[in-house]
Parts: sequence; structure tokens; C-alpha cells
Amino acid sequence: MLGIDPGTRVVGWAVLDQHKGRLSLVATGVIRCNHKVYAQRLAQVLAGLRQVIAAHKPAQAAVEEAFSGKNPRTALVIGEGRGVALAALGEAGLPVAAYPARTIKRCVAGAGAADKQAVARMVALQLGLAKLPEPHDASDACAVAITHCVRKVLPR
Amino acid sequence: MLGIDPGTRVVGWAVLDQHKGRLSLVATGVIRCNHKVYAQRLAQVLAGLRQVIAAHKPAQAAVEEAFSGKNPRTALVIGEGRGVALAALGEAGLPVAAYPARTIKRCVAGAGAADKQAVARMVALQLGLAKLPEPHDASDACAVAITHCVRKVLPR
Repeated sequence: MLGIDPGTRVVGWAVLDQHKGRLSLVATGVIRCNHKVYAQRLAQVLAGLRQVIAAHKPAQAAVEEAFSGKNPRTALVIGEGRGVALAALGEAGLPVAAYPARTIKRCVAGAGAADKQAVARMVALQLGLAKLPEPHDASDACAVAITHCVRKVLPR
Repeated sequence: MLGIDPGTRVVGWAVLDQHKGRLSLVATGVIRCNHKVYAQRLAQVLAGLRQVIAAHKPAQAAVEEAFSGKNPRTALVIGEGRGVALAALGEAGLPVAAYPARTIKRCVAGAGAADKQAVARMVALQLGLAKLPEPHDASDACAVAITHCVRKVLPR
């Protein structure tokens, strides 16, 4: 199970395993896209996700549902990063679930308005990690992955 | 020289050749993305553009500059289609130029507010085509390709 926090500079990812109802973290990390040319940065997102998928062979994926916000310019850039991530998941034939940010926060931290630090602490607790996943892009990817696993098991 | 009109359902593309200052159309068409699963549709954009690039081996590419408009929700979806197209171009190592819609219309049809039909007619005229490129996604891709060729040659 692969959780993704899309972006055009940093893409968070987390692979979880679920065994007899217990969740465990297989691996988490970020893809850093630092090429100075924008189209090349987006190609780095694609290549990075392809590598993660090849290494861990997840059977399904989840991303945060796109939050378009109020600023069309920001929404456009968020869309650009998200579109590339979805294309990489689609290319690998993975079914992709999407969850609203509030659902993820409520599911992981118990409150829809939890801040990133609270999410990271609860992610570490739920996955039995000795330290918080860093940076926040990685813990956000863990959070969406946890949400997907919990939602699949429990009735909504 | 490859011109692209990005999208999440129909992607227009056009390959132009420039010889002794004369522009000619090598090929144009659209990639239809009709998969019922959204991530798979975006993967179709990726695969389709990859095919076009492999078939025609362009040395550079141009797209319309993103117009984010007023609706964040629309901007997000436009971004998703555009991000995938840019990633495909970036992956192929193509330099990508972007032009505002008004610049393209002014360059091709002489007026920044020209409608799609006027753009199609002027594209056909400038490329010496017996009939208008169809659908509009294809003629829009021709238009951005023409703009790039003209802008490169003439002082701005």
C-alpha cells in the first residue's frame, strides 16, 4: 500500500504493510525535485515515483484529495504536481484512492484541524516508530496510507 | 518542433518543420484519453505523447502558458493535464517554451481575441493546408508551434 503526498519540489511517499490487522511501515521518504527547469522537475517526480513503485511493488495507492483552495494560480501548480503523480500511479496500473485532508487528519490524529506536527506524532505512534518520520511530506504520505488501510478495514 | 495543447481528455499535438524560413506541417493529431479511471487517463496522456515524440523526434517543444482563470477547481484540473504533458516533454529532454494565449492568437490570427475558428483558418493558411486541422485541439497545437517558430526567428 503506497501513500503519496504530491508536489513539484518535494514528493512524500510511504509504503505500509498490513498483517492481521496490524499496520507497519515498510519504507518512507521523499523525492526531491531540484532541477532548475520546471518540465525536468516534473520528470523527476515521474522517475522518482517509478523507482519507488519498482522497489516496493505496492498493490494499491492513496493520495490526498486535491484541495483547490481559493487561489487559481496555486491550484494550477498543485494540479501540475498531482497530475504527474497520478499518471505515474496509473501507468503502474495501481488503483488510486483519494481522501479529503480533513478525513485524513481525523483518521490519524482524531481531529480534522490537526497541525502537521500532531499528524507526525500520531503517525509515529500508530506505526510504532521510534522517531517521527521527516520531513512533513513523508509523514503526510504515511497519514494518507494509514487512512486508506483503516478505511478499507472499518465500515465508513 | 512540437506544439502541444494539453488536456485530460483530448491532447492536441502538431509537429512543424522549418526550412529556409518556411514553415510546413509534418503531422498533427490528438491523443484521446477515454479510460474511465482518471489516473489511467493521465497515463494515456503520458503514453500518447511519448509515442508522438518517439515517432517524430522533435528537438524542442512549446505549450500555451497556463491560464489559471478564476475558478480554482478548473485550474486544478487544467494543471493536472498540463503537468503530465510537461513531464513527458521533460522526460524526453526537450526544452519547453510557453506562450500566453493572447500572444499565440495575435501571432497566428493577428488579434489577441480571435476565436478558435479564426485561429484554425489562419493556421491552415500559414501552413498551406488544403483543409482546416481538426479538431480544435489539433489546430491550437499548430498555433502554439507556429508562434514558437515565428518568435524564434523574428525579434520580439
